[in-house]
Formats: sequence, structure tokens, C-alpha cells
Amino acid sequence: MSEAAADCVLCLPPAASPLWAGERCRVMLAGEPDYPSFCRVIWRTHVREMTDLAAIDREHLLAVVFTVERVLRELLQPDKINLAALGNQVPHLHWHVIPRFRDDAHFPDAVWALRRRTGVPRAVDESVLRPNLAAALSGIR
Amino acid sequence: MSEAAADCVLCLPPAASPLWAGERCRVMLAGEPDYPSFCRVIWRTHVREMTDLAAIDREHLLAVVFTVERVLRELLQPDKINLAALGNQVPHLHWHVIPRFRDDAHFPDAVWALRRRTGVPRAVDESVLRPNLAAALSGIR
Repeated sequence: MSEAAADCVLCLPPAASPLWAGERCRVMLAGEPDYPSFCRVIWRTHVREMTDLAAIDREHLLAVVFTVERVLRELLQPDKINLAALGNQVPHLHWHVIPRFRDDAHFPDAVWALRRRTGVPRAVDESVLRPNLAAALSGIR
Repeated sequence: MSEAAADCVLCLPPAASPLWAGERCRVMLAGEPDYPSFCRVIWRTHVREMTDLAAIDREHLLAVVFTVERVLRELLQPDKINLAALGNQVPHLHWHVIPRFRDDAHFPDAVWALRRRTGVPRAVDESVLRPNLAAALSGIR
């Protein structure tokens, strides 16, 4: 496993400021206008699949993913959380953590499907999300 | 958390024979013609989100998911594995484990997006998949 891969956008330093950054992964807002609270948890090194990670790293990454899920649920009370690790376009491990609402643009379809309606984006207050995440992830490096 | 929910199709006994069944979850072929090896790992009881599960159950479910991923990778050498827990349509915990190939119907998009082409479905030999899964999951109940 190489540390960084040529032409991989997720191997580059992030363009925006992470919501949280640890030694092994970082949490970013995805910046999707329909889904302002859509977060991504991005592994630092260029690893393709979950089963390419050592068990201890897999547990670490998932601990961060589920902490993000928990913090987003507490903050937003979504109708559903969607979790996905796809990576067909960028085969560098990253998890999508997406709070979903019945009146969002695609519900009950996946956010990758055709949009069903002009959705109602739920704003997320970064000035609350950031410290909440930091507190919830404080035991995790 | 209730054991079963009214009108939940995943609370009913499965219509097809599971590839593998444990006390807490089962592995099913999804039966998607474009994706013959698309598997679902379905939690037995009616639980909505991963963060509604006890940590020990979450670990168990993920151990099964990653074992399915590993067995499918060994058998099919897909270009990518897609993992997702969405549940917008059926809010009963289930994981999609989807081997993806560059010439499948949607690559590099998600399988929930518009199809890009007539894909080349990769057949999976159930008479091999079943015992391989059983062996790989033999330590897990």
C-alpha cells in the first residue's frame, strides 16, 4: 500500500478545512447544496477497500464514522442516516454519512438516483457541529 | 426496539433461501439481474440505524459484512466493492455488498443512478459461494 497515489484527489491536502482531523482520517463536509450536513470520513492513506485495512484501522475508521452518525443524529434528528463506501470514481477509502429527510431532493431513493423534487435542504450550524464532533471524537486520534 | 415491525418486509421470513443464516443476521443474494453477486446482510430484528445497535452487535454485523466482502473479492476479483446501509425504503438495518466491474451497467456511478449501458453481469456460482461463505463465517454465529 502506497502512502499517496498519483492523480488521487483524496491523497491531496484537503481544499477546505476539515471538521475534524486525526492521524488516520479526517471528517469533511461534502459541500453538497441539497445536503448541507452530508459528511465524508476520508482515510488518510491511499487504501482501496475496507478489507485492505488492518482490523485495528478498520475499527478506528468505523468508530469515527459512527461517531459522526451519532453527532449528526443528535443535532438534526434526520428521518434516516445513509452510510456508504463506494469509491468507484475515487478508489481511496471514504465513507459518506448522509442525514436524510422525507422532504429532501431524493427521498426515499439514494442521493445518487434521479432527483424526485426540489428538496428542502436542512442547514447545519458548523459552529455547533465542529465542537460537538471534537468533543465526541476527543478520545480518538 | 421491537423484535418485528408490522409491514416490514425484512421482518418477514425470507422468501428465498439465505446464503448463510446466523442467530443475529443473514446473508441473501439480492437477486438483481445486472448484479448477480450483489449480496445483502440483513439484521434479524427491526433496528433502524447502526448507532441503535449495541456495540457488540454492530461489530458482529460488520464482521459478517466484511467477510462477505472478502469472499466475494476472492471469488470474483471485482474492480471495486460498494458497501452501503441506506434503508430509506425499508428502515430495517441491512447492508448492500456489491461487487462492481468497469463494464457493469452503472460504473463508475452508484447502482442507484441512471444506467449508463447494457452491463455485462458477472455470474456467481452459488455452489461455490455458499460453502466459501459458510467456511469463512464458521467462527461466527
